[in-house]
Amino acid sequence: MNRRDFLSSACKIAAFAGAAGFVNTAYTQTETRPNIIFILADDLGWGDLGCYGNPRIKTPNLDKLAAKGTRLTQFYTCGSVCSPTRVSVLTGNFPARHAIHGHFASTDQNKQRGMPDSLDPAVQTLPRLLKSAGYITGHIGKWHIGIEDASEYGFNEAKTTNGGGSDAYAMPDGYQAFRNNSTETFTDDAVDFINRHKSSPFFLNLWYLDPHATLEPSDELLKEYEHLRVSEKFTGAQQIYYSIVTNLDRQVGRLLSVLEEQGLSDNTIVIFSSDNGPEDIYISNASHSAAGSQGPFRGRKRSLYEGGIRVPFIIRWPGKIGAGEVDDTTVMTTADLLPSLCRTAGVGNYRPVDGEDLSHVFKGKEVKREKPIFWEYRFPDYSYHINRSPLMAMRRGNWKLLANPDGSRIELYDIKTDPMELDNLAEEKPELTETLFTRLLKWHKSLPEGEISPNAGSNGYNWPETLNR
Amino acid sequence: MNRRDFLSSACKIAAFAGAAGFVNTAYTQTETRPNIIFILADDLGWGDLGCYGNPRIKTPNLDKLAAKGTRLTQFYTCGSVCSPTRVSVLTGNFPARHAIHGHFASTDQNKQRGMPDSLDPAVQTLPRLLKSAGYITGHIGKWHIGIEDASEYGFNEAKTTNGGGSDAYAMPDGYQAFRNNSTETFTDDAVDFINRHKSSPFFLNLWYLDPHATLEPSDELLKEYEHLRVSEKFTGAQQIYYSIVTNLDRQVGRLLSVLEEQGLSDNTIVIFSSDNGPEDIYISNASHSAAGSQGPFRGRKRSLYEGGIRVPFIIRWPGKIGAGEVDDTTVMTTADLLPSLCRTAGVGNYRPVDGEDLSHVFKGKEVKREKPIFWEYRFPDYSYHINRSPLMAMRRGNWKLLANPDGSRIELYDIKTDPMELDNLAEEKPELTETLFTRLLKWHKSLPEGEISPNAGSNGYNWPETLNR
Repeated sequence: MNRRDFLSSACKIAAFAGAAGFVNTAYTQTETRPNIIFILADDLGWGDLGCYGNPRIKTPNLDKLAAKGTRLTQFYTCGSVCSPTRVSVLTGNFPARHAIHGHFASTDQNKQRGMPDSLDPAVQTLPRLLKSAGYITGHIGKWHIGIEDASEYGFNEAKTTNGGGSDAYAMPDGYQAFRNNSTETFTDDAVDFINRHKSSPFFLNLWYLDPHATLEPSDELLKEYEHLRVSEKFTGAQQIYYSIVTNLDRQVGRLLSVLEEQGLSDNTIVIFSSDNGPEDIYISNASHSAAGSQGPFRGRKRSLYEGGIRVPFIIRWPGKIGAGEVDDTTVMTTADLLPSLCRTAGVGNYRPVDGEDLSHVFKGKEVKREKPIFWEYRFPDYSYHINRSPLMAMRRGNWKLLANPDGSRIELYDIKTDPMELDNLAEEKPELTETLFTRLLKWHKSLPEGEISPNAGSNGYNWPETLNR
Repeated sequence: MNRRDFLSSACKIAAFAGAAGFVNTAYTQTETRPNIIFILADDLGWGDLGCYGNPRIKTPNLDKLAAKGTRLTQFYTCGSVCSPTRVSVLTGNFPARHAIHGHFASTDQNKQRGMPDSLDPAVQTLPRLLKSAGYITGHIGKWHIGIEDASEYGFNEAKTTNGGGSDAYAMPDGYQAFRNNSTETFTDDAVDFINRHKSSPFFLNLWYLDPHATLEPSDELLKEYEHLRVSEKFTGAQQIYYSIVTNLDRQVGRLLSVLEEQGLSDNTIVIFSSDNGPEDIYISNASHSAAGSQGPFRGRKRSLYEGGIRVPFIIRWPGKIGAGEVDDTTVMTTADLLPSLCRTAGVGNYRPVDGEDLSHVFKGKEVKREKPIFWEYRFPDYSYHINRSPLMAMRRGNWKLLANPDGSRIELYDIKTDPMELDNLAEEKPELTETLFTRLLKWHKSLPEGEISPNAGSNGYNWPETLNR
């Protein structure tokens, strides 16, 4: 990376984080470095797993993972849609810092949204940091971080789909046919990766396409939920969605069995999470995904209310993190993974990021975070009106502020006592609201310039006054 | 009706209404009495028609009905599920007064719920009042007011389904096959009824089964929404639900054409409404119905939030009520239909009911109601947590109070400024809240005794504190 590259990308990061130096994590070189497997589901909601309270979807393997590990109830994605969250995992930053506000689409669409066509490959990334510290790094499955090849970001091996022209997965029968079996295929390749690299510390991203629409479970998978069939003629949303989630669970179970067989379970950190909340029924090809659950929260995918950004997070590291524990205290995000995993893996130096080192969580400690969290989503959300949030959000302590940059729709919630975000305290607490709004606005103004969609942050309806008379 | 019957049913009504006498509507006998057609859809939401702002479902005939008539935006059903609303239409009373709290089911289930097996046929009913005043009265389609024959309630003609053992509609190919064509069948019979009775004033209930699940539109109907198909393998919720609503619209269109051909349009009041909000996706055989819209409101079927009880209401009466008007002021309910239609039809005397005579609405006037509205739903609601209401509700003026009888979950909303019911003002307005709660509780205590389901009025979730550790 030359000096100009540094200025054009990395330097901004340092400036934002308020420190230009390097972070020294002072790790102990003598500790055995754990393998890390980060499994990311796509559009799986907070309420979609048995261990998160779902009474209908069968997820025995993930429930078992939670029973042998710890489950966080306040884990957030840094995006309310796909690509931004993925960018935050890779970079440890809020995605808007890289001008990645929505999902990567066509070049024209990206341009229209003020987005590049890829995350700049020169930025500091989690896999590059781990690789430079001796890890074998791999990425298998969904990419969706733009048209640049995943291997450009520090992976020794990358086999991706949804990565522009660089997709490695062959799709002889067309995309849908490939999708239908992709969870098995990715798992096969993950098993292969593990078998080949079992003797070295490895980091593996295993990013599934499921349960993102379009869903087409096989007849065999549907059988499990035959009791939820709508009619002889039509298969219902529940039967389809639940079948896909249960299959995802089975494939994760298969992967965990391999770890067990290879004697790797004890020295492998396994993390399971999702990239955002569940899809809404208004997306035509995703109408089955409306059976996905955001748990008790307000909001689904695209929303900055909890249901759009709060997702399952299970971590298993036998002997280090508690078994069957529920961490209700730690407020953690996808951007915290870079500093936390670097610390855990013994990676000494990295440039400051938005995320916070919460690696003590991996040792079974509940941690009180210091840094606030910021979100934005600058595109319209046509879903159920009650779930449409303002376009910016911030969480500091137990307070969450949502607002539009023009000062409309200012909402303040005490997330601990009001996780559904129904009791707006903005009027009752004007000073706190003002302080947080100023801070949120400052953050938003510090982002790279770009278009904001006219309908972003609106929950408008053709309500009586404006109904077409 | 003997004295004992009177005491066991009707007398309570008089006592509740605060007057034991008869209402004198002082109608003008010389006016030509209008025919009345009351079309009731099943589980159709406030937001499911083009004229109520739906940009996707095609309902040209109902939109035209609204363009030639008036559309109310604050019309309520007196039940959040099927049977109670239907009882309120028939009796002019809140259904709980008759111990009808939920849908009629098996005798065992009714008993368990503290419900009779039918509405007492001896009670005062709208068709009996109209019949006694010279109207030919008919009921075609869904009944669901118990096992007693619909003809016992004052109909000259009744051809029903879902009426216990008295169902008149033959179902040679099984229930679903019948359902699939029921909207056409009912319309055929309505046309026949109109043709036979065109020279006398008539009152016709035309109660459709659609778009209540289970939905199975024909391939021909699905074609209209082919662009919303999920995949080659699966038909999606939107395609299925929208097809059914559009077919309902077509059949209503056919009926209106017949009125036009017969020269009856000018002297026929046509009303279109629905029995409650749209179904929730958690009901397995109704997962396609999740594509139904409650508009901007909180709540769906079973909920006492607006989305469960606020429905479309279109009334056309050429020359009397305005064409293309939107009445945002009048707060009207299904219980108001009895007094309002009696007045309009020139029916002189009826015993007091819970409903209010708002017949001026039918003459194009916006009316400010005097009586409060009361609701209850004493069974659990397993839908999306945010939509689950307390078990009692009351509206007086623009205030809506929701609460459980034990004083938990007291919520006060200003419906005019907060139609989404998100800004709970109970703490800010303790005196008003107390007054309304006392009144609501008094009403609830005055109802016939009966079981309340343990989970009624709860929006609980296995939230962190109680998650299975």
